[in-house]
Amino acid sequence: MINWKNLDELEAYKELEADPKVCLPEVMAGENGAERVKKYCAPMAEGLAFNYAAKAVDDKILDSLKKLAEEAQLLEKFEELYNGAVVNTGEKRLVLHQLCRGQLGKDVIADGVNKREFYVKQQERIAAFAKKVHDGEITNADGEKFTTVVQIGIGGSDLGPRAIYIALENWARKNNTLKMEAKFISNVDPDDAAAVLNSIDVKHSLFVLVSKSGTTLETLTNEAFVKNALTEAGLDPAKHMVAVTSETSPLAKNEGYLDAFYMDDYIGGRYSSSSAVGCGVLSLAFGPEVFAQFLDGAAATDKLSTEKDILKNPALLDALIGVYERNVLGFENTAVLPYSQALSRFPAHLQQLDMESNGKSVNRFGEPVDYPTGPIIFGEPGTNGQHSFYQLLHQGKTIIPLQFIGYRNSQIGTDVVIEGSTSQQKLCANVAAQIVAFACGKEDENLNKKFDGGRPSSIIIGDQLTPASLGALLAHFENKVMFQGFAWNVNSFDQEGVQLGKVLAKKVLAHQTDGALAVYSDLLNI
Amino acid sequence: MINWKNLDELEAYKELEADPKVCLPEVMAGENGAERVKKYCAPMAEGLAFNYAAKAVDDKILDSLKKLAEEAQLLEKFEELYNGAVVNTGEKRLVLHQLCRGQLGKDVIADGVNKREFYVKQQERIAAFAKKVHDGEITNADGEKFTTVVQIGIGGSDLGPRAIYIALENWARKNNTLKMEAKFISNVDPDDAAAVLNSIDVKHSLFVLVSKSGTTLETLTNEAFVKNALTEAGLDPAKHMVAVTSETSPLAKNEGYLDAFYMDDYIGGRYSSSSAVGCGVLSLAFGPEVFAQFLDGAAATDKLSTEKDILKNPALLDALIGVYERNVLGFENTAVLPYSQALSRFPAHLQQLDMESNGKSVNRFGEPVDYPTGPIIFGEPGTNGQHSFYQLLHQGKTIIPLQFIGYRNSQIGTDVVIEGSTSQQKLCANVAAQIVAFACGKEDENLNKKFDGGRPSSIIIGDQLTPASLGALLAHFENKVMFQGFAWNVNSFDQEGVQLGKVLAKKVLAHQTDGALAVYSDLLNI
Repeated sequence: MINWKNLDELEAYKELEADPKVCLPEVMAGENGAERVKKYCAPMAEGLAFNYAAKAVDDKILDSLKKLAEEAQLLEKFEELYNGAVVNTGEKRLVLHQLCRGQLGKDVIADGVNKREFYVKQQERIAAFAKKVHDGEITNADGEKFTTVVQIGIGGSDLGPRAIYIALENWARKNNTLKMEAKFISNVDPDDAAAVLNSIDVKHSLFVLVSKSGTTLETLTNEAFVKNALTEAGLDPAKHMVAVTSETSPLAKNEGYLDAFYMDDYIGGRYSSSSAVGCGVLSLAFGPEVFAQFLDGAAATDKLSTEKDILKNPALLDALIGVYERNVLGFENTAVLPYSQALSRFPAHLQQLDMESNGKSVNRFGEPVDYPTGPIIFGEPGTNGQHSFYQLLHQGKTIIPLQFIGYRNSQIGTDVVIEGSTSQQKLCANVAAQIVAFACGKEDENLNKKFDGGRPSSIIIGDQLTPASLGALLAHFENKVMFQGFAWNVNSFDQEGVQLGKVLAKKVLAHQTDGALAVYSDLLNI
Repeated sequence: MINWKNLDELEAYKELEADPKVCLPEVMAGENGAERVKKYCAPMAEGLAFNYAAKAVDDKILDSLKKLAEEAQLLEKFEELYNGAVVNTGEKRLVLHQLCRGQLGKDVIADGVNKREFYVKQQERIAAFAKKVHDGEITNADGEKFTTVVQIGIGGSDLGPRAIYIALENWARKNNTLKMEAKFISNVDPDDAAAVLNSIDVKHSLFVLVSKSGTTLETLTNEAFVKNALTEAGLDPAKHMVAVTSETSPLAKNEGYLDAFYMDDYIGGRYSSSSAVGCGVLSLAFGPEVFAQFLDGAAATDKLSTEKDILKNPALLDALIGVYERNVLGFENTAVLPYSQALSRFPAHLQQLDMESNGKSVNRFGEPVDYPTGPIIFGEPGTNGQHSFYQLLHQGKTIIPLQFIGYRNSQIGTDVVIEGSTSQQKLCANVAAQIVAFACGKEDENLNKKFDGGRPSSIIIGDQLTPASLGALLAHFENKVMFQGFAWNVNSFDQEGVQLGKVLAKKVLAHQTDGALAVYSDLLNI
């Protein structure tokens, strides 16, 4: 039987609070530091490794975290989730994104359907559709191939697929598997759609409209934008659009679309990259085989995330260390710093994944919690960040835990040797240097040049950013966030915080405002 | 005589701490709220307005902030700065970026040169060069016009100019003043340069190499990358490159470049958008007239920033409210949320501007300060953010002050009416709704659907994002950050925190490592 307790009710949490703190500049110095880097490293799926030597933990704290994981039954809760329990208690829904990429537990039957079979069937339908597009069996009215795919969606229908596309675009070019260029329209700002439409050849463009409910206002508005542009170009919108939606939405079985691919209520937007939401645009862009590799990588992480020993379960370990930093050490933020330009939009996706999942103040029973929950996530790629906000990270008054990501090899492989090293070596040298600089600091009589150190970080290291290793990376963070939600006893799968703004925006548009809202509406000429 | 005192030494600060706090949901409700929105609004330059009704201030707190501004001599310090004092005490330098856009005070003579004349001369030289490029007087070896300009720089040589280019690209297309498409290479990740080079026609591309010292490793590495590509394409790099650098750098008066335009030590990277760093690439992209409009907007803000009445000086007022939020209310972060897709990279620029300037722990005399300094800055455009991290902003355990930016009109002007409103109206309705939702919240018996409110925000409202209004906006934040640095008594113009990482990265590349650094280097195969 699962116990859903608040974090501060756990005995192990009290023990964790009482554990002596680790002084990073001390433990990371000299040979002891070298030993930590070798020892505090957990293999991940797809050849990745999670190195947490520069986190402010030691064997004692790790032992308390192990007890915390056990007492909070984090693995048992994960098991409940993948076996189909109603983990999303607010909306009374199952949470099934892992089922898109593998069968971790029992068959999950919902609404009379085997859900794994349902998700696989959508993947197969998309793969068949994409193949026909790539082979020129599905074309525009003149029988010409589609060369561009444009995703129309917002939030989870945009950030994840966009980050993944950007992450793999150069890899796909290099490996001759870029089938179609992808673009994304998301913002209700009319300049977003207009600029994308101005930048493409609509006659050879296929649009993927993504809305689970079929009622997302931003997305439907942008669809109308696109339909206008198609019609003005003398094209039939119905021949240029597919829908990704739920089977019960107005977009399903609708003659306005070439085809429709289905998602369901058991996969939230921010977890939907593995579902038809990511599968559609990414299979069209890169080919279904590449998307399958991405899913395999994610599935490998999911399997590893069931491992009982926290030291062999990087997602769980990462989650626990994050809880320690947030609740015991009191850090509000986490910066995600990929040393990979291809991951330039990955922090924005993690920002949604994490902040929308665990940015909550009530537990799963709707009771207020008295402790901090999800952190604030932001980040930009290194080395760019080094020439920007790292100043505050190194010498500011606020300590921010850091999540580095780095790869031994680039994606494209073109490189130059300057001053005896390649750019890729310089990139890797910089991330290694930063970890040590943040942890150890440096004494200086001039306090302006002094570095206190004690800035904790971990790094995920891989050989190369590939579809499989990206899937593994994404699932790591999805599972980390899930484990943290369990530890904080919040529901990580609803998002009631987005509702009030929607309600008030509708009032503004209906001119049903008073008070401050009426004056703001006037100021903005609505 | 200027007194440089720490914030916590000021009498006005103690008064500010003692002032009764404002309960936003109360004061923003009903007609009182409407009155606040009308009253707490300060005109800015270029038709912008700074509305701070939804900040947790009232007349009493504003009065204390006024006293704080006076006691801390914030305006006098600004006057010192623009009259050429050595405000950058760490590096013993003047701080002169305002001189690029106007003469606020006395002539500033440094190194025997009238600096205003020097900056204007560089603008004129760039304008003449750009005109020749646009008119086909300066061409590639085959006499063909250059169509693309590529900026090679990092940090301040990248983020500001890039954000400005993205902000104005669609405006320029719409107004037929996009002379050349611009691209940016910044990261030492070899995939950054390789991907940009793969995406352009190098034969018709002009590269602007930006490095003040002429020794920035990332930038020189990327230059070598570009030179390789040019040479491989059978082109002469010296005919495709200009340099923006200091007069004493190895890049100056160098036959490897078509021409060189000069900056100096008195303008830091993050403040350099107004200097030759921004002027080069932006004049080439948009034409010198457009860049001149940008400077005019910035100059108008600078002038307004000398206004003695804090209620009529939005940059100063914004700065003071930020200090109140950071030091009295204890908020660590500020989110920048432009309701304009064109400002998609503006938050990343402000992140550098603010965090690199004021992310300090010592005062200008090198003594530790005992109070929080610069906040953590992050942000993404609305409405996208609403479908992402706004969940935490609305219902998370951590309160984050918000900086909204919104415009009454779009840049491109293409729009559709859906459900009775245009996209632009929906965009504006959303930002109005969010301000009120964050401030006022909503009661609900189901605590999961309850919004506490009390999340402070301000909004900058404009008619349209144009070169002039963008210049005004950027200078607002530059001056805000400057005033805050004065209030915190830190040196906002050095960045010693970036040094240690550089030193350690060099050690790694020279294989002069031991301890933890050696093991990380091994793990990353350096």
